[in-house]
Amino acid sequence: MKNNQFARLAVDHETVNKELQRIHFIDDQVRSARTAADTYRLLLRKAFLKVRTDSEFEMKLKNYLATPEMDLRDYLVTGQPITPKVFYLVALQLFNFLADVDYEIDDPLAATKRMQLPVTSGVGIWDKDQLLDAWYLLLTTHTKDGQTFLDQLTNQGYFVPFYDLPFSEKPLFFNGKAQAVFDTTKLIRDVVYVESSVDSDHDGTRDLLKVEIVRPVDTEKGLKVPVLYTASPYNQGINDEAGEKATHNVNVPLAEKQPNDLNYEDIAWHDGGTVLPDPRPISGETKQATETFSRELSYTLNDYFLARGFAAIYSAGIGTLDSDGIQTCGDPQQTEATVDVIEWLNGKRRAFTNRTDNIAITAWWCNGSVGMTGRSYLGTLATAAATTGVEGLKTIISEAAISSWYDYYRDGGLTIAPGGFPGEDADVLAIETLSRMKSAADYQLHINDFFAGQMKQMARDMDRESGNYNTFWDARNYRKAIKNIKCDVLMIHGLNDWNVKPRQVEKLWEGLRDVPVTKKIILHQGQHIYINAFRSIDYTDMINLWISHELYGIENGAEEILPNVIVQDNVIPETWTAYQDWSEPDLPRTAYNLTPGELVMTPVSHEIMSFKDNLPEDVFERYAAHIDQWEHDILTNQKSELSENRLLFQSRPLDEDRIIDGHARVHVKVAVNRPLGMLSFQLVDYGETKRFNVSPSAIHGMDLAYRWREDRLREFTLAKFATPFKMITKGHINLQNRENPWKVNELKPEQFYDVMIELQPTFHKLVAGHRLGLVVYATDFGMTVRGNQDLRYSLDLGGCHLEVPFK
Amino acid sequence: MKNNQFARLAVDHETVNKELQRIHFIDDQVRSARTAADTYRLLLRKAFLKVRTDSEFEMKLKNYLATPEMDLRDYLVTGQPITPKVFYLVALQLFNFLADVDYEIDDPLAATKRMQLPVTSGVGIWDKDQLLDAWYLLLTTHTKDGQTFLDQLTNQGYFVPFYDLPFSEKPLFFNGKAQAVFDTTKLIRDVVYVESSVDSDHDGTRDLLKVEIVRPVDTEKGLKVPVLYTASPYNQGINDEAGEKATHNVNVPLAEKQPNDLNYEDIAWHDGGTVLPDPRPISGETKQATETFSRELSYTLNDYFLARGFAAIYSAGIGTLDSDGIQTCGDPQQTEATVDVIEWLNGKRRAFTNRTDNIAITAWWCNGSVGMTGRSYLGTLATAAATTGVEGLKTIISEAAISSWYDYYRDGGLTIAPGGFPGEDADVLAIETLSRMKSAADYQLHINDFFAGQMKQMARDMDRESGNYNTFWDARNYRKAIKNIKCDVLMIHGLNDWNVKPRQVEKLWEGLRDVPVTKKIILHQGQHIYINAFRSIDYTDMINLWISHELYGIENGAEEILPNVIVQDNVIPETWTAYQDWSEPDLPRTAYNLTPGELVMTPVSHEIMSFKDNLPEDVFERYAAHIDQWEHDILTNQKSELSENRLLFQSRPLDEDRIIDGHARVHVKVAVNRPLGMLSFQLVDYGETKRFNVSPSAIHGMDLAYRWREDRLREFTLAKFATPFKMITKGHINLQNRENPWKVNELKPEQFYDVMIELQPTFHKLVAGHRLGLVVYATDFGMTVRGNQDLRYSLDLGGCHLEVPFK
Repeated sequence: MKNNQFARLAVDHETVNKELQRIHFIDDQVRSARTAADTYRLLLRKAFLKVRTDSEFEMKLKNYLATPEMDLRDYLVTGQPITPKVFYLVALQLFNFLADVDYEIDDPLAATKRMQLPVTSGVGIWDKDQLLDAWYLLLTTHTKDGQTFLDQLTNQGYFVPFYDLPFSEKPLFFNGKAQAVFDTTKLIRDVVYVESSVDSDHDGTRDLLKVEIVRPVDTEKGLKVPVLYTASPYNQGINDEAGEKATHNVNVPLAEKQPNDLNYEDIAWHDGGTVLPDPRPISGETKQATETFSRELSYTLNDYFLARGFAAIYSAGIGTLDSDGIQTCGDPQQTEATVDVIEWLNGKRRAFTNRTDNIAITAWWCNGSVGMTGRSYLGTLATAAATTGVEGLKTIISEAAISSWYDYYRDGGLTIAPGGFPGEDADVLAIETLSRMKSAADYQLHINDFFAGQMKQMARDMDRESGNYNTFWDARNYRKAIKNIKCDVLMIHGLNDWNVKPRQVEKLWEGLRDVPVTKKIILHQGQHIYINAFRSIDYTDMINLWISHELYGIENGAEEILPNVIVQDNVIPETWTAYQDWSEPDLPRTAYNLTPGELVMTPVSHEIMSFKDNLPEDVFERYAAHIDQWEHDILTNQKSELSENRLLFQSRPLDEDRIIDGHARVHVKVAVNRPLGMLSFQLVDYGETKRFNVSPSAIHGMDLAYRWREDRLREFTLAKFATPFKMITKGHINLQNRENPWKVNELKPEQFYDVMIELQPTFHKLVAGHRLGLVVYATDFGMTVRGNQDLRYSLDLGGCHLEVPFK
Repeated sequence: MKNNQFARLAVDHETVNKELQRIHFIDDQVRSARTAADTYRLLLRKAFLKVRTDSEFEMKLKNYLATPEMDLRDYLVTGQPITPKVFYLVALQLFNFLADVDYEIDDPLAATKRMQLPVTSGVGIWDKDQLLDAWYLLLTTHTKDGQTFLDQLTNQGYFVPFYDLPFSEKPLFFNGKAQAVFDTTKLIRDVVYVESSVDSDHDGTRDLLKVEIVRPVDTEKGLKVPVLYTASPYNQGINDEAGEKATHNVNVPLAEKQPNDLNYEDIAWHDGGTVLPDPRPISGETKQATETFSRELSYTLNDYFLARGFAAIYSAGIGTLDSDGIQTCGDPQQTEATVDVIEWLNGKRRAFTNRTDNIAITAWWCNGSVGMTGRSYLGTLATAAATTGVEGLKTIISEAAISSWYDYYRDGGLTIAPGGFPGEDADVLAIETLSRMKSAADYQLHINDFFAGQMKQMARDMDRESGNYNTFWDARNYRKAIKNIKCDVLMIHGLNDWNVKPRQVEKLWEGLRDVPVTKKIILHQGQHIYINAFRSIDYTDMINLWISHELYGIENGAEEILPNVIVQDNVIPETWTAYQDWSEPDLPRTAYNLTPGELVMTPVSHEIMSFKDNLPEDVFERYAAHIDQWEHDILTNQKSELSENRLLFQSRPLDEDRIIDGHARVHVKVAVNRPLGMLSFQLVDYGETKRFNVSPSAIHGMDLAYRWREDRLREFTLAKFATPFKMITKGHINLQNRENPWKVNELKPEQFYDVMIELQPTFHKLVAGHRLGLVVYATDFGMTVRGNQDLRYSLDLGGCHLEVPFK
């Protein structure tokens, strides 16, 4: 195990004293202790929460080694002094590390160094102050179980006596982070209905939005708390079967498109301004919600903070069960509705206790500060909300979020599926998330017909066949409004996320460069996953530091202490590195020429190389059924049934490790035998080595507070066996969209055209001895349509090169 | 979704009235309701737990369709009558089924029939009694979410007002099953140390066993509860890394063994009778435990029952953290220690509050009745305990349990790994479960040296090289004592469990035939998994019915109502069938002769067929690294690199579906080119079809009670793509153990010997059109040693046949 903590604050001794007092480790007894050893024993007694009497405490001390030859009880009884060696040998045991496996009992400090566990400086015998400093550091350090030692104690009930503190002493911060002093068995769960400023189902009334609220009981006594708001269209359930049924067939030909002469302004979306029905009259007011719920579909990160002085709210938005409206997947009405909930939390909008009686209810328990959380569509709506500049939204923590829906379902004038979901499209997702379907009466009697009509319109508007960028997609491009963002932005994305691809976050990061807000980004080696329970990084602590600052206004230095960019290494497990920037626009690019089979600096080849696209029917069907096999065979430099369906170029083995930082570009001079065509590209890391498993491995369950909900601790580990290559990044383009995705160019058969494509961004370490590879092909079985057409592509190598941004 | 409920009791109207009253659905208001419709509305009001006022109730009624054209509120307001069609249309919605997906709104009764949801008979307009009967049936029927509607209401808080019932009214049974009327936020957690009757670490004192207890707070007021006891050596943690290090190399040659002339009596284990140290003196008594814990490593089945009037206790036993003794994997001392905990619960043995002070504490809160639960090693210890006939143990629910350790790590004179764990052996498991290692002081100062010595002894005793059955294994064969079993036995096993193989349960089932206890068995299509959260079967309800009867003595007919044998179909998802018996000894067997490539009834071939065992080094290494690939290639009838390494015989396509019920036998006449050898066999279902995925798919989270712990609802689904074959069962034998696993025979090179092997039992439906296949080979890459030796095997087909027990 290797520990990487970015959110631990180094503090002076005065702060140590003050904060240890605040969490009751320092009390009268500790104050009057004379020696470091006496102090240590008193602190340990408080940390041994499972023993109810001193007798058991003494017994448990016997489980710990103080030296290789003596247990901790005997050591303390015989009045020996506390040295770093003794303290850290015991610390490793308190942290659940294993002797002989994680550390050697005669050299504990070698292990703390190896595992990157911070230690208190000072050799020889410690005095009481050094001991207290070391104890403070211990509490804020991660154990083998992926949480701080204080969180470990929290999970055993350390803060239970704090539940009844007067609310003037709550929330309680330690080391700049909110602590679990709130009783989760007493959380209050309310439902309200926010009145939005949209009428997306055209029924002549403003859409009501169901909002589920979970808040600490302390709010009943007057504590005002900030909100973690998760806008999740999935939250009231999804329509798997209907979505499955609506999924498009991808075994259809690529279509020839009629050239056009469009400029961006021709297709740009502009708010038409719709006339909105009047708001509902208010027929009464109350502080008490009249509806509740038993179990929200929660995000474990929010759960963690429910014990720490934050409320969590979930809203599924327009088109979902118990709300009004319809879903059309990322449109401006959905953004408006998402933001309207924040306006209610901020006192600027009305909500009602139910859908009929017009009894108004305010968010009287809220301090007005809101942070948005969640991954994928959830993070997407957080991003959308941020671009409105809505007041009260102090920060978004957007994980694996979409910043433009065109880049999710389309690319370069092609229909491109999110990885793993061939045939999905915006209309499919709209159907899947219309959870009003789950109420048979609401659906059958009220919304069915209108929705069906809207879906027909949507199918036309999204124009699956052409793959072009048009007004529909422009309306769903949040990046147009990045300059409006007023909240701080924390972005998290997987460098192997081929569902929501990395460009989504790169363009947001790029767009925010000149926007005067604080922005941070964490890039991990996962696919489309959460990383809030990883052992090697203190993700949840970082969020705690961040939101304690953003939502409670604590001056904990979060903005300075957290690095701008944190990247997980793709070679060495459990390694996270801080950087100043990612994908800097002016990073120089190394140019490789393409010669048959090779990527070279010089010379330039003038050869023409060709590949076909179609496959025998049985081979085609096999690959369509086993995309993983296709993904392997398209890249292997062994003979395969795809050998004639791609061109492969490899560099010489690298002399030293190199990092690709940002997006590579490919320039090709290409011709095709018919008036239509597409190209796909993959950049590949060739070299036999044990790579990370695709998904993190579960380690064990993890408590989020004392007898509260649980998560699973996970970590990326190396695969048991070596593999010969791994895809680094990819890209696709329709040869009829050589200029941009809205303008369709003519494509003359067998005529060569210059085409440039920007691949998805990455941050990838190519180690010495490995080769960089470029694979050029057409049909991408996992992402493009699969027409199995008689297409033949030729590259004029003299007009081809690859530009790679090496750090 | 298809519903299979075995634990639902059909009751008369009087019982309906009495029990609906008991759970407060019938109250004064309902009693005085005059019409079925009025009664229905009152019942619904009680079931709509999320609404706090009547106004919201009315609003929510609008979400439900009463007829295809009218919502339920309008229907009730207009005073229309309750018909089966209305009642079940609403019921389907209450059960979370989806219109158009799960049912058609104009024919709800077609859907209830298709999904096997029971309905109340009676057409036309219902009267109040019929309505109440139907409501009762509704409460006891499973919804789309894999639990009864009453459990669904439970999870929303229905029984919260029952938490404060006087303990004279607790536990509360409904439809023969205990209900969740216990407040899980107030569970009491105690630790005690039971004094065992073993001194397995030879330290001159009886081993103390740490026991973790979770019990309802009602016990503090005098309620006595039964115990679900899970004996789990994993419970205090495992030593993954040490186990990994101890794992044996399997790339070693099969050894030639010296013939012997042993009879069973020569190697039988007999209790030698050891002298035991005196018990500890008692220096005081208390009712209060002085140690607690925050989070036990729990089994979700136990969690479910913690809300329903049962205590759960966990004990890891000898050799584990905070207990005494050492682990040697399934020895009689471990059985004794396991049983000693039951004796304490039953008032027949002492326990102490801690390890040093000799303060005795009784299980004063326990009614003396114990049921044991758990899977794998846990179920194994339950089986072991049952064979002692210990008083107080009323039943065991043994899931995927070992009944003889020889069959777990050995077979037919061979060392055979549990599937998925090549190189594991009894010593490895002993090391993995010695969680005393986790206490550095206890391990380094007290047990390390003794344990190391014992492990050396164990390595000799288990005799990995020979693979023979000997005294070590005989001491770990619980089946020798099946006749001592006095408790009722519920067995659960996966027909695809190649970790703990199906013979383990077959031999227990067989041994229990004449033992006068009630026995039941459930066979599912999983591997080594739990099935307590499957959507298509009411497993947890069955356990509830069973333990309400066994541990609380409720006369609910459990022994008669639960079928003797329940088997999950391997072809049609969500299909579970009741049978009278499994693997009946006298079921006739169909004999197939072996002719080149074929299994036939006639004629007999007299051909000699041969195959080799060794592989080119690179091929060998590839298969050793990718056992899944080996598993595929050994069975495929396409050309592969293993084509010369096996003989494959296939029957003609079957004319009709046939069920293989029990164990097939293979008789071969075999010769080998050296004085050593082994044979492996697989019975295979050949036929292109979509089969079940290997692991069940998760559906969604599932509450185990109101705001308590959670499980994941799962179900076996058909794979997306067809596969050409599937292994049905397998078996292995050392050709030097032709008579039995303890006697070693001479094996002369190139001489033919008759060998008979019993394959692992199964219950497998071969569908019409499929072929039955038999594959004969030697090295099994996943289970045997892999010597890659120059061995060549020959079969004289005239002396070979296969006997299959078709039902």
